Amino acid sequence: MILFEKIAIITSAYEPALTDAYLLVGDDGKIAYIGGTRPDCAPDRVISGARKALIPGLVNAHTHLPMTVFRGFGEGCELHEWLNNYIFPAEDKLDARCVSACTDLAIAECVRFGTTSVTDMYMFEPTVAERIDKGGMKANLCRAITKFSSPSGFEWSGEKSTEDTREVLELFERWHGHDNSRIVVDAGIHGEYTSEPYLWEKVAAFAKERNIRLHVHLSETKSEHEECIGRWGMTPAEVLEKHGVFDVPANCAHCVWTTPHDHEILAAHGATAVHNPVSNMKLASGFAPVTAMKNAGVNVALGTDGVSSNNSHDMFEEIKAAAIMHKAANLDPSLVPAPDAFAMATINGAKAQGRESECGRLAVGFDADITMLDLDAPHLYPMHSLLSNVVFAARGSDVCMTMVRGRTLYEGGEYKTVDVERARYEIEHYAFPKIWG
Amino acid sequence: MILFEKIAIITSAYEPALTDAYLLVGDDGKIAYIGGTRPDCAPDRVISGARKALIPGLVNAHTHLPMTVFRGFGEGCELHEWLNNYIFPAEDKLDARCVSACTDLAIAECVRFGTTSVTDMYMFEPTVAERIDKGGMKANLCRAITKFSSPSGFEWSGEKSTEDTREVLELFERWHGHDNSRIVVDAGIHGEYTSEPYLWEKVAAFAKERNIRLHVHLSETKSEHEECIGRWGMTPAEVLEKHGVFDVPANCAHCVWTTPHDHEILAAHGATAVHNPVSNMKLASGFAPVTAMKNAGVNVALGTDGVSSNNSHDMFEEIKAAAIMHKAANLDPSLVPAPDAFAMATINGAKAQGRESECGRLAVGFDADITMLDLDAPHLYPMHSLLSNVVFAARGSDVCMTMVRGRTLYEGGEYKTVDVERARYEIEHYAFPKIWG
Repeated sequence: MILFEKIAIITSAYEPALTDAYLLVGDDGKIAYIGGTRPDCAPDRVISGARKALIPGLVNAHTHLPMTVFRGFGEGCELHEWLNNYIFPAEDKLDARCVSACTDLAIAECVRFGTTSVTDMYMFEPTVAERIDKGGMKANLCRAITKFSSPSGFEWSGEKSTEDTREVLELFERWHGHDNSRIVVDAGIHGEYTSEPYLWEKVAAFAKERNIRLHVHLSETKSEHEECIGRWGMTPAEVLEKHGVFDVPANCAHCVWTTPHDHEILAAHGATAVHNPVSNMKLASGFAPVTAMKNAGVNVALGTDGVSSNNSHDMFEEIKAAAIMHKAANLDPSLVPAPDAFAMATINGAKAQGRESECGRLAVGFDADITMLDLDAPHLYPMHSLLSNVVFAARGSDVCMTMVRGRTLYEGGEYKTVDVERARYEIEHYAFPKIWG
Repeated sequence: MILFEKIAIITSAYEPALTDAYLLVGDDGKIAYIGGTRPDCAPDRVISGARKALIPGLVNAHTHLPMTVFRGFGEGCELHEWLNNYIFPAEDKLDARCVSACTDLAIAECVRFGTTSVTDMYMFEPTVAERIDKGGMKANLCRAITKFSSPSGFEWSGEKSTEDTREVLELFERWHGHDNSRIVVDAGIHGEYTSEPYLWEKVAAFAKERNIRLHVHLSETKSEHEECIGRWGMTPAEVLEKHGVFDVPANCAHCVWTTPHDHEILAAHGATAVHNPVSNMKLASGFAPVTAMKNAGVNVALGTDGVSSNNSHDMFEEIKAAAIMHKAANLDPSLVPAPDAFAMATINGAKAQGRESECGRLAVGFDADITMLDLDAPHLYPMHSLLSNVVFAARGSDVCMTMVRGRTLYEGGEYKTVDVERARYEIEHYAFPKIWG
């Protein structure tokens, strides 16, 4: 048992912060107590809360972990040019060993910055799952397939299977529900513009049969959104709905160009829009209509996207960006108030992952997915409002401890589950020559 | 003498980064050597450059240092409402002792995040100057006067002087050029909407006679810009030009709503536009036309604004915001390339302060105003481009050493010139009761 003593706590985005409170983590990795008086217990460890604060572990609801290797590679061009000329050719050279090292680096970055759960979409996803398993984070993982890799008539296994579809099946069978659902597998469609109706229907059916969620890129860029309308006479959300993609809970990454009708569709199906503020700005995609989505009843979560378009996995930066950019884009300071931005990175993210009854807020009986902040820095004083300081002044580097299910993954400069030096060595000496020759 | 050995260096925004280079700081506080081989010298200290990088000390060209006490106070409303209902009433309670402690806190934050020089506009500015003197940073300081404090017919001293005009004179006489111009005094006009032609002409004449620069808020909000046109039939830049404000080099903070003609005026007079990306987003002011200004030949520098509207003094955040927000606002990924964003925070800032021959880049003979970054963190690896990592992935907390004229102000968690605990104590026990209680 670990007892946090006399500590400030944000239990959830919409509840008043506690001060001088106690939080007890039980041996089962769940939160056993939160309150203003010391609980009757004999903890193995007592952590002083002086100039510290606890917040729910952050949920990064859209990223591509292994893309750490592309941090800063091919800067300053438009999304599709960047993908086609820089990223895709380099990705073709990746193998599982590259992905393993790059994922380890990403996990280290995530836990260092207070993220406890991620939703990942990439290739060699069974390898990502192995690293997540070892790294101790929670994750919803998917291998998105495309029309290029899996043409019409494909099957998940057997004669008509492809390398990709076999990976999807392997991922699901080996990893879905692993470690009491610390790892969950989602179905994945890369996007409308990289797939076809036969694929949407097949992937949606796969998800429905197995009762799993689905992850898809949706209306990230204006051109992608408009070309879809040109192709089908419908928006990406409309055409995907028609083919059953929203029959399971879907996480739709980006939603920058979605329409009011799209938002009705997402809301009606309980889908989540995953807002990626920094990536959307850096790639010049635009400003997602997050307020309109929220008002339409859509769950809006938050993600970093791959670090190649960010260039880090710092959810604090996303929270602040989400809280300020829409104010300027709409000349309205009332938009995306601090609690809403914080909710996107916590409770809404948990909901996006189907984990809203286990994490996203700090409550008795919930998993002890906890991020501790060190407030002892000039930029975090004074503290007129803890939530305001967390949203507008804190950064990932203020995290001093990150815990998932009561297990410490990062504390005070130490990575408890990832060998960062080994990851760097592997990237330097194996991945670099493999990718760039 | 201090020798940095085998270290990566960004000497300036537009020069290729050096690797495994040597930089020698002379006993005169100037850079004595930069090169690829070890200089012949007997340094007092050798600093290993393994996984470290040097960049020019950052210049924060617009802030209100003492406003640290308002961090997170009165969030989420429109600029003028926030000023009138929250900030101005609280500011009325401030005294020199409050300002002293709050400035110390701000200096600690600045040097911790790699800022070596600031341009400050506030009240009790002679007290700010004292703290800057002790804190060791460079600063251009001004006390901006308004029509409320100094009505028509005011004089700088004597019978028709006011508390404010006497402060302006005291500041200039006591501090301008102090410590070989480490501290410089600028003239100050708060803004068009808080002053009148008699004041513009008088302040401009004051600056002209003394051969000093001038600092002014310009077209920060749409309403302020449009109301000026309503009042004078001219934009703020036009009407201020007419009354001689641009006859001296002026730093114009914000410039969010300036027009192409305004940019011609600024360029023709060698004025600087100080872009405050985070503050402009948080206060819903809008997106400044930085590319248009740059193309018109205007020097564009970068500032945090007061932390009350930011909420920190982290110039790395401003650099990144400047590099990404305009891409999204204009759906054009080619805007504000990384070197331009970095230049705004370094060489352009130095130019804004009239210091372009002493700092803003690392060069032999220049002051050793140097920021060292610790690259040994997962979020700064790999390093396809040092500049890209500095602009898009680094944050203030990656700074491990900040030096002004060869004097170390911050290193590895230690504040060499500011007593942060004393500042906190003073704010808690003196400023808080004085302002709110």
